[in-house]
Order: sequence, then structure tokens, then C-alpha cells
Amino acid sequence: MNKGINITTIDRPWTTESGATFSSVDIAWKSWGTLNKQRDNVILICHALTGHAAADEWFSGLFAKNGILDPETQFIICINAPGSCYGSTGPKSINPETGKPYKGDFPEITIRDIVHFQQLLLDHLDIESIELVIGGSMGGMNALEFTLIDERVQSAALLAMGKSHSPWAIGISQAQRRAIYADPNWKNGFYDDEHPPEAGLAAAREMAMITYRTPQNYDQKFGRDVHPEKDIFQVESYLDYQGEKLVKRFDANAYVVLSKAMDYHDVSRARGSFEEVLGSVQQAVLIVGIESDLLYPINEQIELAELIPNSTFAPIKSPYGHDAFLIEFEQINGHLKQFYKTHTQKISTQL
Amino acid sequence: MNKGINITTIDRPWTTESGATFSSVDIAWKSWGTLNKQRDNVILICHALTGHAAADEWFSGLFAKNGILDPETQFIICINAPGSCYGSTGPKSINPETGKPYKGDFPEITIRDIVHFQQLLLDHLDIESIELVIGGSMGGMNALEFTLIDERVQSAALLAMGKSHSPWAIGISQAQRRAIYADPNWKNGFYDDEHPPEAGLAAAREMAMITYRTPQNYDQKFGRDVHPEKDIFQVESYLDYQGEKLVKRFDANAYVVLSKAMDYHDVSRARGSFEEVLGSVQQAVLIVGIESDLLYPINEQIELAELIPNSTFAPIKSPYGHDAFLIEFEQINGHLKQFYKTHTQKISTQL
Repeated sequence: MNKGINITTIDRPWTTESGATFSSVDIAWKSWGTLNKQRDNVILICHALTGHAAADEWFSGLFAKNGILDPETQFIICINAPGSCYGSTGPKSINPETGKPYKGDFPEITIRDIVHFQQLLLDHLDIESIELVIGGSMGGMNALEFTLIDERVQSAALLAMGKSHSPWAIGISQAQRRAIYADPNWKNGFYDDEHPPEAGLAAAREMAMITYRTPQNYDQKFGRDVHPEKDIFQVESYLDYQGEKLVKRFDANAYVVLSKAMDYHDVSRARGSFEEVLGSVQQAVLIVGIESDLLYPINEQIELAELIPNSTFAPIKSPYGHDAFLIEFEQINGHLKQFYKTHTQKISTQL
Repeated sequence: MNKGINITTIDRPWTTESGATFSSVDIAWKSWGTLNKQRDNVILICHALTGHAAADEWFSGLFAKNGILDPETQFIICINAPGSCYGSTGPKSINPETGKPYKGDFPEITIRDIVHFQQLLLDHLDIESIELVIGGSMGGMNALEFTLIDERVQSAALLAMGKSHSPWAIGISQAQRRAIYADPNWKNGFYDDEHPPEAGLAAAREMAMITYRTPQNYDQKFGRDVHPEKDIFQVESYLDYQGEKLVKRFDANAYVVLSKAMDYHDVSRARGSFEEVLGSVQQAVLIVGIESDLLYPINEQIELAELIPNSTFAPIKSPYGHDAFLIEFEQINGHLKQFYKTHTQKISTQL
């Protein structure tokens, strides 16, 4: 995970919508390719809830030979969101006021806060223009807010999310947080590093994993097969394994902070109606929806496409549900390349 | 809840598929109407996961003036499942070997075990014939197994379930159990009655509540409204309330035992293929599917109808998802009454 990750400390303030101010932040990021002289050959990638700056690991298909990304001509960058546990300022960072990690004291943040945080690095790197910002799920929310907030963004590709977090998705988040809170080790976020709330976080992940897929996919993958050694169904064994796997790589406070940031996702907040806000988007926007997505159903993407003037809607056929944005790379690359060719001609004219 | 509930102790053995034997059982039940001389005017109602014998409370629409149920002519009976916490033998019952409640020692049970348990009461009451067995969700699984096991069953109405618990539904169950297990009070089921695993059970219930409804329903019901006093979304407040409400009325061990019984639901187990087993059903069967059911999607009911020879399939249009079987009484009564008139003429010819 840490291969090629830079951590840059920026001594400029970052203030959250909730009113907390950090006078200095650490920003973890990874890049591929070289910035051109105009500093405008930038592709910005935004990661999902438990993702990180090493986008080549989880968006591998976009980096593949036939993928949309090309480090020969593009400067590709992915910036870890604040609140996460992959290098950027988050609940594990030291609070300068106490000399101890923030833990449960880390403030609530929003997707807009994430954009403002990431802008500090883009400014630091003197990025002049962003050809394309791409993201799925939380990364899509991040990319949409970037498009609204940062005039450097020339075009955006948003996958598998909507104009705001639906009450159903908020409910799913809340049930997961409840499972974390039920863990005796949680201690309101002030848990011992040696004894994190693993059982609660694992339960939350198991719940999440279900909403990321579909009944059809689970039928095909597991059926009602029983684990050959354990006296449980294969699907139970798989989910337990996924829960344990996440616990090893992710932090419960980060999960709570970022899942709440997703719940607060609402491009209309303090800006006007959805029609006004999304109707004001000037950039070309590709909106990719997955037909089997149960978490952010495709009607949410159709709605986005209807509200954003210069948008293109592209459906993905897949049995994988929400997770398809990390799986169906052939279709995703197809849509992205077509969109990129049509709306982002800087590179091709320069070559 | 206890209005009119009978608890009958039956000194006959009940042996579970897992090999545990109870030499005597307590069976909680409620009935409406009078058994006729032939003891065959019986309508048997089966309850869902957290349900109980007082079917008039949760199936009120079927008891309403325009409902299918008529205590003037029918003897309607609902029997609490074993493993539950509403009067029938379950984890809170005293284990005669230890003189203490079974708690975590209560054996794993299956839907077939539930049928064999309920048969003890029907035998005790000298029931000769069952005109119609009705159930939804776990109650539907219960009713389907009754139809397969008990020749007294003349016809069945199955709502919102399938031929076996899908791996996706098992995953949902497992994630919920994980939340219960994450609670420090769980203690492998041997919790203190004064300190039950409330936080874990509440988290499980919140997760379940989401799968019982639909994004559309939550949009309409809550939108992104914020609670006027608490600093949370209305949907979060609602789910928290639902979690707390269940904790007051339901037992965590019962939740684990019965959710596992649902996971074990598989009419083909040790009997042959689904085609053979369901193809052997002689009785008339009405299968009701809900178009918006995310937990047991309508294709599961269509499949049941395809596999059961003398079956009628009836879809329910509803925004409520799985819960519609407890809400859309006008449509349900319509289908049930039509089916009852066609296939169960005993009553009408007798009158």
C-alpha cells in the first residue's frame, strides 16, 4: 500500500464545515506520469470509503494497457481523503493541543471539507487545470463536489452515486455505525490501539459487503454451499473473512468519520435547489450508473444526468451491483475513453 | 401481547434435526372461532422472525371486516415457534438437566423442527384437517414445510419467501448476528438477564429494518430531514427507535436461533432436488410475491410457483418492499379470498 505514497505536510489552515481548524495538515498522495509545462495534463482520481491514494491497486483496470489512464501523457494523481487512516490527517493524527491522537475528538467532516483539503495539495503542486476528475461511490461524491467547487476542473466522470446520500443509504451507514458502537472496545472512539473495536468494525463491513453486491451474484458465487471445515455456510465464511480483512487494514474512527461524511453528501446544502446547483455545472460530466446497484440505484445517476446540463449518461450491465465500479473495467474504460476523446482534447492536440 | 395466549405443556418428546431431544415442551398459541365437529375448519397462521401467536396484532388486516379470516365459520390458530421468546419453549426456558435457562445452550433448530413442534399442539387439539396454512417471510417458510410434512394441510398461502434461504439473505442474517456477537454483554448467549446485549440486538434490528423496506419508501418517509432536537437525520432517529423498541420486546438468543433456522430453510435438504420436492406438492398453493421485495426478490416466488404444480402466483404492487406482507392487506386479502373461494369450498358447502 505504501509503495510510492508521498506524505506532504502543508502549513496552511484547513477549516471544516463544522468549524474545526487545523493549522497544518498531512496529505498522502500518489502520482503517475509527469506534469507538463502548462501544469494542466492532470487526471485526478478520488477514492471510496475504505480506499487510499494507491489508485493503481483498486482502479487497476483504468491503469491497464487498454485503460483510459496513460502516464506517458497524463499526470495522474490520487489524494487520500482526510479522516482516513492512510496517511492524510485523520483520527490517528496527533492533536497539537493535546500531543495525543485525536481519536474520538476528530471533528465531523463533509465531502466539501475533503475537497478543500485536497485543494491544498493541488495548490501546493501549482496545478493549473484538471482535465478530468474521476471517482466512484464516495469518490464520485468527492469528484462531483470538486466539479462544483474548483474551477480548474474541466470535466468529471462520476460513478455509482447520486446528488445526495439517500435516507436508505444513511440508514445503512447508521446500522453499521451502531454495530461499531456495540463493541465494548469502541469507548466512544477513544479505544486502546492494542484493542480496537474489531468485532464491531467487522460486523459493519459484513453489512456493507452485502449492500455492495446482489442476490444474483451471491447465488452464483456461493449458492447454499457449506464450508468444508467450519459448520457454517460458505457465504458466512466469506463475509467473516472480509470483516477480518478490513479490520487489519482500516480504522474504526476513520470508518465512522468517512461514513458520516458520505451521509452529509448533499450538493444542495446551503446553495439552493438541486436544479439550481446542478444546473449551474458548466463542465462536461460523464455519469456512469450500474443497473444492479442496490446501494445507489441507477435512478440516482439518471437523475444526476437529467439535472447536469452538459452530461452524458452511461449504464453498466453487471451482476455485481455497486462493486461493479471496481470490477467492470472493460465497460468503464469504454465509456471513459469515449467521453475523454469527445470532451478532453488537450492531450491529443498537444501530441 | 399476552391477551388470549394459551400456554400448553405437552409431555411428548420433540427432537430437533440437530439431535437434541426435549421430553416435554411448552407451546404458546392463540385461537379465534370454534372448532367444528369434524375438527377440520382450521386456518393455521405462521408468524415471522420476531412475531408471536397474537396474529390479530400483526396480521390485523386479515382479521378485519373485509379480511379473509372469519371466526364465525373458521377455527383460526397461530402457534408460537420454538426458539422464540413469546411463551413457547426457547432459550429462556428452564433446562431440566441444569435447572437453569438454556440461554446459549439452546440447540440450533430448523424450520422443519418448528413444524414438528407445532404438530404436537395440533395433535393435542385433535385437529383432523387444516383448510389453509398462511405465512409470510419466516412464516411462509414454516407454512411451506407444513405443506410438505403434514398431510392434514389442504392448501397453503405463502408470502414473500422462497424455496430456500438465499446466500444473500444468509449473509444479511450473519452480519446481524455479528453485530449481536460484538456486544460485550452477549457472552456467547449466556448473558445476564439484567444486562442483555441490547446495543448489538438494536444494531441487528436496524440492519434488518433496512432490508425490509426500499430506497423509494425511505425517500418518501424521511427524505434528508434532520431531527428537530437531535443532531442526526430523521432516518437515523427512526432506526435507533426501531432498534430500541425491539430490544424491549425480543431476546437476543431467540433472534440468533430463529435467524439461523431461516438460514437453514431449504426444502430440498435430504429429500432430493427442488424439482422433485416441490413437484411432489399435491395441495393447492397460493404464492404471493412483492414486486419491491429486496430481501426475498419476487423471482424467488415466481420460481416457487413454477416448481409447485397446483400453484397460483399473485404479485403485490407496493413501495414498502418486504414489509408489504404486513401492510398491503387490501391486495393480500383480495388474492387470499379469491384463492380460498376457488380451492377451499368445505366451509361454503357446509353452511
